[in-house]
Amino acid sequence: MDFAPTPRAQDLLTRIDRFIRDQIEPVEEAYLRQVTAQREGEFAVPPVLEQLKAKARDAGLWNLFLPQAVEVPGGPTSPGLPNADYAILAERMGRSAIASEVFNCSAPDTGNMEVLLHFGSPAQQERWLHPLLRGEIRSAFCMTEPDVASSDATNMRATAIVDGDEIVLNGRKWWSTGIGHPDCDVLIFMGLTDPTAHRYAQHSMVCVPRDAPGVTVERMLPTMGFLDGPHGHGEVSFDDVRLPLDAVIGTPGGAFGIAQARLGPGRVHHCMRLIGLAELALEHACRRAMSRTAFGKPLANLGGNRERIADARMAIDQARLLVLQAAWLLDTQGLQGALGAVSQIKVVVPNMAQGVIDMAIQLHGGGGLSDDFPLAGAWTMARSLRLADGPDEVHRGVVARLELAPYKPADAGGAA
Amino acid sequence: MDFAPTPRAQDLLTRIDRFIRDQIEPVEEAYLRQVTAQREGEFAVPPVLEQLKAKARDAGLWNLFLPQAVEVPGGPTSPGLPNADYAILAERMGRSAIASEVFNCSAPDTGNMEVLLHFGSPAQQERWLHPLLRGEIRSAFCMTEPDVASSDATNMRATAIVDGDEIVLNGRKWWSTGIGHPDCDVLIFMGLTDPTAHRYAQHSMVCVPRDAPGVTVERMLPTMGFLDGPHGHGEVSFDDVRLPLDAVIGTPGGAFGIAQARLGPGRVHHCMRLIGLAELALEHACRRAMSRTAFGKPLANLGGNRERIADARMAIDQARLLVLQAAWLLDTQGLQGALGAVSQIKVVVPNMAQGVIDMAIQLHGGGGLSDDFPLAGAWTMARSLRLADGPDEVHRGVVARLELAPYKPADAGGAA
Amino acid sequence: MDFAPTPRAQDLLTRIDRFIRDQIEPVEEAYLRQVTAQREGEFAVPPVLEQLKAKARDAGLWNLFLPQAVEVPGGPTSPGLPNADYAILAERMGRSAIASEVFNCSAPDTGNMEVLLHFGSPAQQERWLHPLLRGEIRSAFCMTEPDVASSDATNMRATAIVDGDEIVLNGRKWWSTGIGHPDCDVLIFMGLTDPTAHRYAQHSMVCVPRDAPGVTVERMLPTMGFLDGPHGHGEVSFDDVRLPLDAVIGTPGGAFGIAQARLGPGRVHHCMRLIGLAELALEHACRRAMSRTAFGKPLANLGGNRERIADARMAIDQARLLVLQAAWLLDTQGLQGALGAVSQIKVVVPNMAQGVIDMAIQLHGGGGLSDDFPLAGAWTMARSLRLADGPDEVHRGVVARLELAPYKPADAGGAA
Amino acid sequence: MDFAPTPRAQDLLTRIDRFIRDQIEPVEEAYLRQVTAQREGEFAVPPVLEQLKAKARDAGLWNLFLPQAVEVPGGPTSPGLPNADYAILAERMGRSAIASEVFNCSAPDTGNMEVLLHFGSPAQQERWLHPLLRGEIRSAFCMTEPDVASSDATNMRATAIVDGDEIVLNGRKWWSTGIGHPDCDVLIFMGLTDPTAHRYAQHSMVCVPRDAPGVTVERMLPTMGFLDGPHGHGEVSFDDVRLPLDAVIGTPGGAFGIAQARLGPGRVHHCMRLIGLAELALEHACRRAMSRTAFGKPLANLGGNRERIADARMAIDQARLLVLQAAWLLDTQGLQGALGAVSQIKVVVPNMAQGVIDMAIQLHGGGGLSDDFPLAGAWTMARSLRLADGPDEVHRGVVARLELAPYKPADAGGAA
Repeated sequence: MDFAPTPRAQDLLTRIDRFIRDQIEPVEEAYLRQVTAQREGEFAVPPVLEQLKAKARDAGLWNLFLPQAVEVPGGPTSPGLPNADYAILAERMGRSAIASEVFNCSAPDTGNMEVLLHFGSPAQQERWLHPLLRGEIRSAFCMTEPDVASSDATNMRATAIVDGDEIVLNGRKWWSTGIGHPDCDVLIFMGLTDPTAHRYAQHSMVCVPRDAPGVTVERMLPTMGFLDGPHGHGEVSFDDVRLPLDAVIGTPGGAFGIAQARLGPGRVHHCMRLIGLAELALEHACRRAMSRTAFGKPLANLGGNRERIADARMAIDQARLLVLQAAWLLDTQGLQGALGAVSQIKVVVPNMAQGVIDMAIQLHGGGGLSDDFPLAGAWTMARSLRLADGPDEVHRGVVARLELAPYKPADAGGAA
Repeated sequence: MDFAPTPRAQDLLTRIDRFIRDQIEPVEEAYLRQVTAQREGEFAVPPVLEQLKAKARDAGLWNLFLPQAVEVPGGPTSPGLPNADYAILAERMGRSAIASEVFNCSAPDTGNMEVLLHFGSPAQQERWLHPLLRGEIRSAFCMTEPDVASSDATNMRATAIVDGDEIVLNGRKWWSTGIGHPDCDVLIFMGLTDPTAHRYAQHSMVCVPRDAPGVTVERMLPTMGFLDGPHGHGEVSFDDVRLPLDAVIGTPGGAFGIAQARLGPGRVHHCMRLIGLAELALEHACRRAMSRTAFGKPLANLGGNRERIADARMAIDQARLLVLQAAWLLDTQGLQGALGAVSQIKVVVPNMAQGVIDMAIQLHGGGGLSDDFPLAGAWTMARSLRLADGPDEVHRGVVARLELAPYKPADAGGAA
Repeated sequence: MDFAPTPRAQDLLTRIDRFIRDQIEPVEEAYLRQVTAQREGEFAVPPVLEQLKAKARDAGLWNLFLPQAVEVPGGPTSPGLPNADYAILAERMGRSAIASEVFNCSAPDTGNMEVLLHFGSPAQQERWLHPLLRGEIRSAFCMTEPDVASSDATNMRATAIVDGDEIVLNGRKWWSTGIGHPDCDVLIFMGLTDPTAHRYAQHSMVCVPRDAPGVTVERMLPTMGFLDGPHGHGEVSFDDVRLPLDAVIGTPGGAFGIAQARLGPGRVHHCMRLIGLAELALEHACRRAMSRTAFGKPLANLGGNRERIADARMAIDQARLLVLQAAWLLDTQGLQGALGAVSQIKVVVPNMAQGVIDMAIQLHGGGGLSDDFPLAGAWTMARSLRLADGPDEVHRGVVARLELAPYKPADAGGAA
Repeated sequence: MDFAPTPRAQDLLTRIDRFIRDQIEPVEEAYLRQVTAQREGEFAVPPVLEQLKAKARDAGLWNLFLPQAVEVPGGPTSPGLPNADYAILAERMGRSAIASEVFNCSAPDTGNMEVLLHFGSPAQQERWLHPLLRGEIRSAFCMTEPDVASSDATNMRATAIVDGDEIVLNGRKWWSTGIGHPDCDVLIFMGLTDPTAHRYAQHSMVCVPRDAPGVTVERMLPTMGFLDGPHGHGEVSFDDVRLPLDAVIGTPGGAFGIAQARLGPGRVHHCMRLIGLAELALEHACRRAMSRTAFGKPLANLGGNRERIADARMAIDQARLLVLQAAWLLDTQGLQGALGAVSQIKVVVPNMAQGVIDMAIQLHGGGGLSDDFPLAGAWTMARSLRLADGPDEVHRGVVARLELAPYKPADAGGAA
């Protein structure tokens, strides 16, 4: 057992930490002020972002999330870090609202790149994967639907019907994150192809150009009042969107396997970023607790504040270890071996972060709810991740199923 | 012991319930859509609100929050309901985002009217109280400050210095709710007058015309991304605001007593409205739990959802009884007799509501975080009330102090 | 709405409070020391108890739990208090380990007396009810079984088979509280009579003399290490226990209705006694917090101790109001009208008490776990009531069922 | 980062697991039945225990807790396992009530052996350490006192006064675990020597023969009703116990440094054993959840039971990682480097275990509170460890102090 980061992870951590401090943090507040003021229909990316991306690419701090060394025509080869190494970097990036994007490590592009890398055709890779890897375009993932409980993916109603050498998409998706981004060029759409097939062979994933006829972004959805521009979360209708059959990723009916592969590392990334946010919130809480005075004492010395700070530290440290172990399981045992661990972190981390950030908000008084601190936004991120990529309840179900598997069920006497 | 509402409360409840269903609910969604789209600087009140207010006034459903029958020149006499009776009505109003205002029962006007009624001079009453009672103008309350821990009111830095027959105000306030409202005409400002006086005789309350020279609304503050127009929450600077001495409410140095009187009933109102919101959230949760299907079952039959619904019901019912008892104590024993009870509800209810609404959000999936349901807004209301009018920690401190009072302290050996 | 106790309840409260202080408390510790030292097979009642009972009977503080004025040959007529009045007295009794018994108000006799009063034949009443009402004998209730999940009463395996003019009992029961008491003379046994009848008409309740052939107390069960002598909790086997048919209470197959009637008030009693215990624990916590010093301060001023004391106060007060309301509903709307309320308190109160007592234990350090304070015993009482009379989960299920009843279920598409 | 156990730890785990299954488990129930029936004054060790110890010693599964390879005259040399390796073994031992003792790894002997190994004189080592290492005698640790808040060790009132070439002990200790054991031969006593010295140089540790004149075991203390024989927890008076000065461990005034060294690894041991107990409880919970049926379903499929099982799994896994990391920090950075980590686990693990075991109890119904399952005892162990070796509150304080250390305090204006 060894809890120390590898030298390589440690080295990259030092480098991205310096990059974020020197290059990103000085401009981040202005960036956020600009994008927060954008209303629906006004999304635009402040130019500083492309400048930062160019610097990061030049510094080799690029596509760090990829476990493989991937060569990209016209772009740098990714370093190929194990998940356990990348996790540490993701935590650091998570403290910033834009660092992930600067290092070309932001969702949903990361997952979409993984999908295209492993399952995309050469043509799909050339058209979509390479520009994504170079950071030239962005993408969206269209899975969740407004009209059904999407926690059960088999509920999905949108269709992807094969019609000769074409595939025709219909339906309505929402929470399509990133679709508002001016550079979003491609959507990965998931729909029902064959309801008569096996439960896990009914759906297809399709690459949809953002400007394909029939694709309409109906509206951008606020999350707890935040539009999250310039990428945002869209409700998108697909109305007889007709594409050549080679827009399908893999084969028709193959979506579930692809989706599974997409979600393991993505959940580790999300969770480590959230841990970074929770650490940031705890730092704010400590600073506030020591610098504000009430009733003649620093807040830290009032009531249960110290205990809450200790509880936050313990919750964060436990959650981090759990995520690192999940990443290590992904690296050493693959998706199946990490199944329970990944579901565990998906429950533990957002709940932990929600609690820690709520505590930090409370220590900040009204300011904690405003935009003067990153806390309101951080809370919203944590809260939304209790739903995104599978709600708590579904992941608890996975953990319980694995836990109970060794035990023989009682004979329930045929009752319902 | 008798847990039944009085016939009078029951009758009024029936009437406002019918009014809200017939008059308010049909227009509320459109109203909210309009005001939510307003950015800072664009606040305006949709005309339907004044129409509704006129109808409510004509129906005698007006100023219900006042425990006394108060005659108003040119307006209806208030019915004069005990707090325990009004509490039941406040719960009903709390389910709507605008009903309190329609019945001229919305904060901070209610508290400001109580202050002016009990402590205002005849001139102040004529100039500010009567238009407020008639619903012609609105008001703000300027107490909390950005630069100090306002949970300890003695931290207050803004000043209200007597200079001959004038009083001069300086300082910066924030979370001045209502100041963004186009009809906001008067601010009640609290500031430090005499730092050499007794701890509770140092501050003054002053009526400040919204357009007094030196009063500047620096910005409107978002709460978890919500600007809460058209009233909003402002950061306000007071820069040598010079007013005649008779702008002081009561006497200089008398603010603490006035503030105390203001807060008891106001906390009951807030809490009962929140209970209404929590009930609304639970209804949404139940409806969703029975109408959405996943894994072949209604959500209600999955995992711990039923238990959470039961927990919500138990939490709401307990909290409601606690508030009603606090209201009854206010009615029967006055502010001092209800001190602990009021602090108790101020902790219990917002925390309870935050939890119930969070549960309802979870059952709604991504929709719960959007504006498609009243849940994100309700959560924000509950969360902000864990800070407004005294944070949880301060109220827990009051409850503990009263609880421990009968016990003799250990001799701590002179240590700090 | 009126939260004041009735004058009658207030008067009786004053009287039993004085009786407990003057008569019971001075002897209680010695009593407990005696009975705690008793091992299985050694149960005996210290004589002081019968002396106290005689005094209580003479003072008219007797059978207070009965909502009706019941005349007893050779005993005092019970005062006939509404549940809401008695609840206040039960709280006071709950602070003492023996007061309930002194006032002839202890479980399971109370429930058994109610059953015999409402459903017993004149012969059963003369033989068992009257001596119970006079406090001459004690009783047990044999329902829960070791081999099945007794939370689902239809699981019951013990049988009560009608054989001509006899009824024959077989099976094994446990947690038969009171069966160890030297004066226990009668058991009320519940068993399966007709598995072909309607789900709620299959079981019978039978009066079983403690010394009937075939009745064997196999062992006394410890609860968290406590044997709870001299009454205790037994595991009892019934081996061809043959009784005349008139030992059946009501009619064969009628047990469920009887059991229901038994449980409403009984749960109110249990809950109010637990509230008394929680208050006692909070008092101990406060006394300790103020009298012990660590790090130069009374414990009350360390860390989150004050907040926990405040939280305990708020939890107790809410729970008490909920129980009083449930009692009031029983009084005004009967069992059906109070169904949800009774299930609510059965979840809320033991969990609340468990938490409050745990907090008090923590403030007492190791002493809190010992027998030097009533806390370890109180915790065990609270914990066991999360299981006795239906586990939390069953009662949450009742609350949720009632809550969801108004909502139409989704069509689950025929899936399991 | 590497989460796999070392080959050596894995090998030993396999061996002790087999030993426990083959040798200990078949006799454990009978052993427990015997000792549970023992009352105060009757403590005796069933002979099987010495037989098991001999087998374990012969198999080299002995003194595994020692990080060093220690040679013992007449006994086997300890393998010398790093804390992180031993932790895994301690978890396995923790599932059994007697395995730790069988492998000579049970508290308080382990801590006492570490103290004597590092700080004992050659004479002390020969007289006490070697028999302890050979498992011939047992020991107790006398630190906590009944009359003061022992969470603050500087409160200690017992005295160890140097009088010429003797040291004289006076005072009263309690929760002296192990003192009831028939083989307990030595007590390590801590007392105040010089109140004028620096806060951390006032106390001494002294080796006291169990039969020294003036040592009286006043009584054995029950923990939640359990006497925990044959070792038990004693209240011990020291009445002018006069010993030669060389009974002092190290030098007079040196106790605090010794106590610190004792507590780091000891807490890791306690915590890992508790994790074993929590795993055992979870297994019982799962088995019960799948084998008992209510309302026509296995308990696992009712209400929130699955979620609770998932929550238990996640809580255990997080806690285990935290303990393993603390052990690794002890190994790689020493006591100071592991200070915060050790305090963290001391809070996290007992609370986690208490919760998991409580859940398991609930699934077992009344049986969970009885002695039929190891759950009531396990709960009591977890609960008592929230107090033993420093209560939660003290350890939270350590964690918070370290967390807040980097932040500059506010100037509190000289107020208290």
